[in-house]
Amino acid sequence: MSDIDPGQARPPRRVRVDLPGRAYDILIGAGLVDAAGSILAERLPDARLAIVTDETVAALHLDRLTASLDAAGIAHAVVTVPPGETSKSFRQLEHVVDAILAGRFERGDAVLAFGGGVVGDLAGFAAAIVRRGMRFVQMPTTLLAQVDSSVGGKTGINSPRGKNLVGAFHQPDLVLADTSVLDTLVPREFAAGYAEVVKYGLIDRPEFFDWLEWKRAPIFAGGPERAEAIAASCEAKAAVVIADEREAGERALLNLGHTFGHAIEAAVAFDPARLVHGEAVSIGMAQAHRFSARLGLCPGQDATRVEAHLKAAGLPTRLSEVPGAAIAREVLMAGIAQDKKVKRGRLTFILTRGIGRSFIAADVDAAQIDEFLAEELAG
Amino acid sequence: MSDIDPGQARPPRRVRVDLPGRAYDILIGAGLVDAAGSILAERLPDARLAIVTDETVAALHLDRLTASLDAAGIAHAVVTVPPGETSKSFRQLEHVVDAILAGRFERGDAVLAFGGGVVGDLAGFAAAIVRRGMRFVQMPTTLLAQVDSSVGGKTGINSPRGKNLVGAFHQPDLVLADTSVLDTLVPREFAAGYAEVVKYGLIDRPEFFDWLEWKRAPIFAGGPERAEAIAASCEAKAAVVIADEREAGERALLNLGHTFGHAIEAAVAFDPARLVHGEAVSIGMAQAHRFSARLGLCPGQDATRVEAHLKAAGLPTRLSEVPGAAIAREVLMAGIAQDKKVKRGRLTFILTRGIGRSFIAADVDAAQIDEFLAEELAG
Ligand SMILES: NC(=O)c1ccc[n+]([C@@H]2O[C@H](COP(=O)([O-])OP(=O)(O)OC[C@H]3O[C@@H](n4cnc5c(N)ncnc54)[C@H](O)[C@@H]3O)[C@@H](O)[C@H]2O)c1
Ligand SMILES: NC(=O)c1ccc[n+]([C@@H]2O[C@H](COP(=O)([O-])OP(=O)(O)OC[C@H]3O[C@@H](n4cnc5c(N)ncnc54)[C@H](O)[C@@H]3O)[C@@H](O)[C@H]2O)c1
Ligand SMILES: [Zn+2]
Ligand SMILES: [Zn+2]
Repeated sequence: MSDIDPGQARPPRRVRVDLPGRAYDILIGAGLVDAAGSILAERLPDARLAIVTDETVAALHLDRLTASLDAAGIAHAVVTVPPGETSKSFRQLEHVVDAILAGRFERGDAVLAFGGGVVGDLAGFAAAIVRRGMRFVQMPTTLLAQVDSSVGGKTGINSPRGKNLVGAFHQPDLVLADTSVLDTLVPREFAAGYAEVVKYGLIDRPEFFDWLEWKRAPIFAGGPERAEAIAASCEAKAAVVIADEREAGERALLNLGHTFGHAIEAAVAFDPARLVHGEAVSIGMAQAHRFSARLGLCPGQDATRVEAHLKAAGLPTRLSEVPGAAIAREVLMAGIAQDKKVKRGRLTFILTRGIGRSFIAADVDAAQIDEFLAEELAG
Repeated sequence: MSDIDPGQARPPRRVRVDLPGRAYDILIGAGLVDAAGSILAERLPDARLAIVTDETVAALHLDRLTASLDAAGIAHAVVTVPPGETSKSFRQLEHVVDAILAGRFERGDAVLAFGGGVVGDLAGFAAAIVRRGMRFVQMPTTLLAQVDSSVGGKTGINSPRGKNLVGAFHQPDLVLADTSVLDTLVPREFAAGYAEVVKYGLIDRPEFFDWLEWKRAPIFAGGPERAEAIAASCEAKAAVVIADEREAGERALLNLGHTFGHAIEAAVAFDPARLVHGEAVSIGMAQAHRFSARLGLCPGQDATRVEAHLKAAGLPTRLSEVPGAAIAREVLMAGIAQDKKVKRGRLTFILTRGIGRSFIAADVDAAQIDEFLAEELAG
């Protein structure tokens, strides 16, 4: 089983991320964990691999990965961190860096991130700073990581002062997204990742949104449409990243739903029992459409359609759906004001003229948002 | 005193480091600490400054720097680390990063390194990773930092597994080298930095070496020749860095004297009481010339001249001058073999055909080095 099972195989889909001087491929398909050894032997010959993973992913999928590397004769070592956001810390960074150095990996060797966005961000940052930059391979194992965090080159850890405040831009040499490992994800995590898939449609790809409305069921069930949706998402994100690698301008569109979303996450103190990131983004995107409709920018029926699709995917779209104590308007407003998309008092929001017609509004009036939130919370 | 005293002033020398897309200036002259406020107000308007320094430099020079910034109306905060190599650690990195974040510095604000190479490497690394990259200003206060560590964009910390194993490339926006702060350096540290000045002459600037032989006294005494020597050194290093920013090839010439030097430092366990880096490099450069002479590559009289100049500057040139227990040949050979300039068993050395005629020798025979060291140790 060191290669894709020829019985069920389709060749993996390939998305090329054409960054000047550092172009790389994202391969997407079922069975890539088992094929990793033969692919890496071709694409990164001579590179030894420092695999970074978390305990949950290691228990479920690591044996197949190391068997595939062994079969291809690729030397490797494994460093495991606890699952969850708390592993994006200086402490785990130091642990991973030390393990890589202990294994005497050189600059030409690669760090391989095998896990969700937490592992990808942590391992990518370690790859960026060990010997001032090692090679880096991503094998994202959550839907969110496959469609979002593994594309774009952002890596990093959290600080007690805020999320993702410490890190580096470090592009991978290769991304292998095995769509079948997503079958072991808890449904809630799959749905949360799906919110980011929907986001790409809502930003500037209305036909993609149409297609998602049509194909949602097989995407969730693991049909070939899953790889197609992931590839389209990677393409969408890559297009934005290529246009704006260092986040000066258009990349802000990727924050659709995220200013409201971050404020909601902060309001529940980032407690994943109450809300995970994708759920907050789902509510935030629904709100961005409702707010845009309220301002007369977006047709009301588009806002309704967005809400219906997210609901059908099992995602929340209203603040009232957040379990636990009700969220106060002042807390949300404070969160919005603190968000890094705020510059010198002006609120920058991603608003929309309709499905697939998002735009950066650099000068949104805080009072209007306050009123809107009051209405939302009233029911 | 918020500007250069017009009585004694010469305008500072300027060395332009012409990296594509990220060109910056190095200003060199007496009085730049007092002029920093007005210069920074012009060059980085709107940037607040997170000053990173060490206790020794803070006690000697910080008041003048902050007075100059205050006079120019530049907001700033200060974070201090203990002096010495042990501050290049994850622990101090986290401390500095946290202080920067606590001060709510943004990407457009700047980290200002005010100290020797330790502070520059640590602060530069923090600037590279806070918010994935802040602006960065270097105010190097040792000769070594002014002529070497502040040029080239290498930043980083040490690991228990080795020096400078963790870091980033992060170019500064501006370097201000005040030549008069060097007056408070202990003579031994000044001489150690001077070894790196001599190195640039020995690599590929024979006329610069001639000039150093002639001007050594006023350089040490703090005459205008000091700024001239520092500017020439920065130009020499910048030329190499521009040609080879990521260390693929020619940048290796900067390691002249450093393969022997690192092995000697390792042999004394990096104990600064026995040997500081520049002293080890001085011995290493003398050895590189003697070894090259022994191979018939370099005229013996050039090796003698190099040795005489280093000695006159108060630097050691022989292993026998290292205080404490004699260094064993096997220990040096092990250090040389472990050095990162070794690739797949082949020893890469910087050798020379004479003063200012160094070259990269990729295939040096370990047995010949072993023999040479045996002779050196015999006396
Ligand atoms: N770098 C970027 O551009 C970027 C973009 C978006 C999000 N992020 C980051 O991504 C992180 C969130 O990523 P995430 O949602 O993947 O979180 P995660 O990595 O914590 O994974 C979620 C949970 O799923 C488990 N898991 C992973 N793969 C599994 C599998 N195949 N089967 C079963 N369980 C599995 C994990 O152990 C974890 O408990 C956040 O830290 C966020 O900041 C980064
Ligand atoms: N980044 C690079 O390219 C590069 C190149 C060479 C060396 N380095 C690094 O630089 C470091 C060595 O730099 P260094 O020699 O400047 O060491 P340092 O920073 O430790 O300074 C040496 C000593 O001098 C003191 N000092 C600094 N300025 C002073 C002043 N004006 N008056 C009195 N005392 C002063 C310091 O407190 C310290 O005790 C090493 O960590 C080395 O790895 C980096
Ligand atoms: Zn998101
Ligand atoms: Zn040196």
